[in-house]
Amino acid sequence: MKAARLYEYDPDMNVELKIEDVAAPTITAPDEVIVKVGAAGLCRTDLHIIEGVWKDIMDTEGNLLPYVMGHENAGWVEDVGSNVTSVKPGDAVICHPFNACGICLECRYGHDMYCDHGKFPGLGLDGGFAEYFKTNERSVIKLNTGITPLSVAPMADAGITAYRAAKKAAKLLNPGGYVLLLGIGGLGHIALQVLKHTCGARVIAVDREPAAQVLAKELGADIVLDGGPNLIDEVKDLTGGGVHVAIDFVGEHGTENICWKLLRQGGELIMVGYGGTVEVPTLELVANEIKIGGSLVGDFVELVELMEMNADGKVTMHQTEYKLANINEAISDFKDRKFTGRGVIVP
Amino acid sequence: MKAARLYEYDPDMNVELKIEDVAAPTITAPDEVIVKVGAAGLCRTDLHIIEGVWKDIMDTEGNLLPYVMGHENAGWVEDVGSNVTSVKPGDAVICHPFNACGICLECRYGHDMYCDHGKFPGLGLDGGFAEYFKTNERSVIKLNTGITPLSVAPMADAGITAYRAAKKAAKLLNPGGYVLLLGIGGLGHIALQVLKHTCGARVIAVDREPAAQVLAKELGADIVLDGGPNLIDEVKDLTGGGVHVAIDFVGEHGTENICWKLLRQGGELIMVGYGGTVEVPTLELVANEIKIGGSLVGDFVELVELMEMNADGKVTMHQTEYKLANINEAISDFKDRKFTGRGVIVP
Amino acid sequence: MKAARLYEYDPDMNVELKIEDVAAPTITAPDEVIVKVGAAGLCRTDLHIIEGVWKDIMDTEGNLLPYVMGHENAGWVEDVGSNVTSVKPGDAVICHPFNACGICLECRYGHDMYCDHGKFPGLGLDGGFAEYFKTNERSVIKLNTGITPLSVAPMADAGITAYRAAKKAAKLLNPGGYVLLLGIGGLGHIALQVLKHTCGARVIAVDREPAAQVLAKELGADIVLDGGPNLIDEVKDLTGGGVHVAIDFVGEHGTENICWKLLRQGGELIMVGYGGTVEVPTLELVANEIKIGGSLVGDFVELVELMEMNADGKVTMHQTEYKLANINEAISDFKDRKFTGRGVIVP
Amino acid sequence: MKAARLYEYDPDMNVELKIEDVAAPTITAPDEVIVKVGAAGLCRTDLHIIEGVWKDIMDTEGNLLPYVMGHENAGWVEDVGSNVTSVKPGDAVICHPFNACGICLECRYGHDMYCDHGKFPGLGLDGGFAEYFKTNERSVIKLNTGITPLSVAPMADAGITAYRAAKKAAKLLNPGGYVLLLGIGGLGHIALQVLKHTCGARVIAVDREPAAQVLAKELGADIVLDGGPNLIDEVKDLTGGGVHVAIDFVGEHGTENICWKLLRQGGELIMVGYGGTVEVPTLELVANEIKIGGSLVGDFVELVELMEMNADGKVTMHQTEYKLANINEAISDFKDRKFTGRGVIVP
Repeated sequence: MKAARLYEYDPDMNVELKIEDVAAPTITAPDEVIVKVGAAGLCRTDLHIIEGVWKDIMDTEGNLLPYVMGHENAGWVEDVGSNVTSVKPGDAVICHPFNACGICLECRYGHDMYCDHGKFPGLGLDGGFAEYFKTNERSVIKLNTGITPLSVAPMADAGITAYRAAKKAAKLLNPGGYVLLLGIGGLGHIALQVLKHTCGARVIAVDREPAAQVLAKELGADIVLDGGPNLIDEVKDLTGGGVHVAIDFVGEHGTENICWKLLRQGGELIMVGYGGTVEVPTLELVANEIKIGGSLVGDFVELVELMEMNADGKVTMHQTEYKLANINEAISDFKDRKFTGRGVIVP
Repeated sequence: MKAARLYEYDPDMNVELKIEDVAAPTITAPDEVIVKVGAAGLCRTDLHIIEGVWKDIMDTEGNLLPYVMGHENAGWVEDVGSNVTSVKPGDAVICHPFNACGICLECRYGHDMYCDHGKFPGLGLDGGFAEYFKTNERSVIKLNTGITPLSVAPMADAGITAYRAAKKAAKLLNPGGYVLLLGIGGLGHIALQVLKHTCGARVIAVDREPAAQVLAKELGADIVLDGGPNLIDEVKDLTGGGVHVAIDFVGEHGTENICWKLLRQGGELIMVGYGGTVEVPTLELVANEIKIGGSLVGDFVELVELMEMNADGKVTMHQTEYKLANINEAISDFKDRKFTGRGVIVP
Repeated sequence: MKAARLYEYDPDMNVELKIEDVAAPTITAPDEVIVKVGAAGLCRTDLHIIEGVWKDIMDTEGNLLPYVMGHENAGWVEDVGSNVTSVKPGDAVICHPFNACGICLECRYGHDMYCDHGKFPGLGLDGGFAEYFKTNERSVIKLNTGITPLSVAPMADAGITAYRAAKKAAKLLNPGGYVLLLGIGGLGHIALQVLKHTCGARVIAVDREPAAQVLAKELGADIVLDGGPNLIDEVKDLTGGGVHVAIDFVGEHGTENICWKLLRQGGELIMVGYGGTVEVPTLELVANEIKIGGSLVGDFVELVELMEMNADGKVTMHQTEYKLANINEAISDFKDRKFTGRGVIVP
Repeated sequence: MKAARLYEYDPDMNVELKIEDVAAPTITAPDEVIVKVGAAGLCRTDLHIIEGVWKDIMDTEGNLLPYVMGHENAGWVEDVGSNVTSVKPGDAVICHPFNACGICLECRYGHDMYCDHGKFPGLGLDGGFAEYFKTNERSVIKLNTGITPLSVAPMADAGITAYRAAKKAAKLLNPGGYVLLLGIGGLGHIALQVLKHTCGARVIAVDREPAAQVLAKELGADIVLDGGPNLIDEVKDLTGGGVHVAIDFVGEHGTENICWKLLRQGGELIMVGYGGTVEVPTLELVANEIKIGGSLVGDFVELVELMEMNADGKVTMHQTEYKLANINEAISDFKDRKFTGRGVIVP
């Protein structure tokens, strides 16, 4: 099969993936599922992988390279292991990125992402920038009638990461409240749509890019700001003292210390982007009783819920498609932020 | 001032309110607020009052009659007591129907409606079917700019009763889930709008009246049913086993034993309407782990939240207006269900 | 192996189990676990099985009889299927009674008991009133160091059913509040201990049996009542208006309509016992905003939590032991309530 | 009346309060309550006031000095304003430290401490290091029968600050989980007792002082540590990966960056002490999905709940008493940590 493989890490990203013929994966255990890839989303984590940021975490058993990235996958079931009963060849599916064990205590609590025995196709083993890839029964979700793999692939990771953060936010919000989203990219534009349907609060979207601002407005943001130097004063004025919840999809280059200053008393910051270091005086934490917490990739059931919102027309992925053969162009455009929403690779 | 007063109870409702001149209320305590009535909603409870259902509860200190009904009031502040600082004459306000004390433990927990020392203008003392009525500072909420008392009066009771039930429901629902509303009248049509903005679940609206079905569809119900004899099978089929939450706005004439049969395992019924008796085998409760709970008038903060949703254009009251002079016609039309949504009396 | 088998149903329970030699179970699928039984609790459901109450539910594929009851099992792993990695022969384990599939959506939400594909050893297939029985990997929990199967077996069902109800109750309770337990038998005495450690509320224990009253007092009940004819007035007086939560472990013979009358405004009744029919006017539900909900067997993680409380010495099973050879005597004593707490069968 | 007044601020605390005769407070508004002080707790905030830390916040209308500190007060009602109905002269009461308005939206949500119009006797106006002080009706709670003001005074601030943090923690904890308390002083020893009764989790108490370690053990801590340099490894080992919740009662001198390193995935740090600055990489927040939040003084209802636990014998204040005449010695002993628990001033 055709696959795009990474042969070396480079902090400056002056490397290209090689499109080449490799052996397709085959069933070797009773719970496995082979998926014919319909589409695979391109994630910022893929850029970090190329840079070598994830090298030590992924190459646990020697040199993983050359290897196939791609962890936001949807397609059609091609083959299944002997124990698999919930899907059959031909079924259109989206794949939760993490193969959790289902047995450990964290799995039993529903914390899929905390599973100690989990595997992450696309990180540490071959993923979906190829014609086929391998996952397991517990990770696949049948698509609703009429939904194509191409239209939803990035929901598998970008989508549920945004969804999880938005769901946490929605639980904290009441009508009349304010939630601020910093960064309206592949994740932020999903969170925005989720919030518009799941809480009565007002959504403030912040992004420096005019195209992202336009997208935010189209998707129903109540207020759109460009994140200029007066952001803090601006937000405090508009909201009468600060927002109830902020979600930071950037988390680096200084943004990591903006959002907690935008919160009102009792407010909460949900950090999704990462890279920087939060520095917050304990006096601020205590006197304003604010909270700062990170948010990971969503669990399996969160992907189910997001797919239902998608099937209902409440949340759609804004994306730009590239052929697998053009994946290096897609990566380059992503770095330069030449498209809004998400980039998607089609075999 | 002009006021509509009830002179006698009649189970058959063959009585009319008298429109007459009475003394306007005046400030007699430091926390009181006199409101010039802009509009007052007509509630099913008003019918029950005329029927004499509430007689023993209201006439605690002898014969209350003749008396002014009307507990869904909005208008403009006319006068305030010496301690009142949060509103001033001329302010447009909506009035929470219950004057809670703010001191007792239930009040401190925010359970306004459980207050032992509370008063209920319109039930047991003069209400808003008049040019002026008296309430207190803790019950008034300033209207957002551009909102008129006429457009929101029934939010004060019908609105928050529906809002409270819908808010409870939204907390129990996830995208892909189903919530069923039985009765799309003055309360149901508000709950429908609230749910469409505060959870990602699908809303099934059930009403026998074609006009109510049309209204439900316009307000965004995902599925509209007429509540025929096959309702239970129909709902189980459509939802793959039953709804996650049902809200019964009728609660009598047999509906009180329909909704719990529509629930799936783990589902919850919220009862708002009343009159009938629920009869449910404990085996059903336990084996299906279903829950049945009543829901009262909303608290003060729930009225605040609903008014914010209204100001944001997310929830509007569908209503028909009558002059105070025509209140008896309004009551008659209400009994005969000649209008959808709510009837409103304008002085 | 020795096993006690039921050969016929009898509503009057004039039948005895036969102790006989049967073939021991063997591994036939990769996720199976054979357990050498250390002890098996005797449950009221076992009596109902003998009476034939569960016949139609269990005998789905023809006549199940003769068959081995026993669904509250603990022991030592004897053999495991090829995929099992979390336990090995020799491990002391307790067994969650229900073998949930782990794949369906309800399982993914952690609702083990709602699984459509689940199996229930002891109900519908052979259980633990024997020397060995078969379960699966997802159902076994390794015992903490120093804990014996004999000391915990009834935790597997009686324990977690009580624990689940108590956990629901604890979430609703604050210090200064009141929770009432009706029935201090095998379940009630566990719920009592759980509540004493997990909420600051006061526990009122109600039982007609003097021995159960003594046990309740020993286990720390704040108030112990005999459930006489003045129970409602008594409770209202003691609590200043009613309890915040009640748990009914009986649910029949009239108790099913006592507890909701003991609730204060906003209170909740958790129904665990079953048999009777709840009849509650909707006006009571709404005006007092009370809630009535059933509670099932606890989930896997609830058994884990209960075993941790047991290991910490916070909750212990009060029980009486019988040899497998004497199981018919145990059943007879249970019917006649000759022991407090739980009866346990030891092979 | 006798009162201890502060005449000047000194960062080095080389100043003494003057014990002198001043005019007793009198009723000047209808909701006021004059309390004859039974006891007043000595708080770390009092030290900070003397140091001048709070000067700019308190001296909003010019120079407040000389002034009476003391915000942890209990005693007997001496006189009440004309509108006060819930207490009468002679009633034994404890006083919530903050006089919230009860009208603003934050108050209506039950967030007493976020009230914009609140007053804080002891901070910014005269407090309880005197024979009498003035508060308002909404701040007083009648003591349960048999409870003396002396035995509970520091519950009014130290107690509810600890209680609020412990209550937040308890909601996050399950049996088998771990909660770590850093600092077993006036607040920490209360939190420890609250947690032992309100969640089934294990409590790890950390304090460098041997006397505090002894107290922790006596109060039921499951594990007591001295907070040495290996604390992080020690805790990770003991807990199998980290604690579920940590509460930092110190928050300065470096502790502020220890506790978040002790959390397991999904864990939460509640910061009560303050002074230092938290510095946490966003990658840690996100990858471990941990949360860090401040916690303020508890609300009125939290003081009610704590007093109920105290009345039930579940939580008692460990304290050392000083006569008002010896207040400067008490302050000195507090600085030198010569007593465990709390210091209390008795007029």
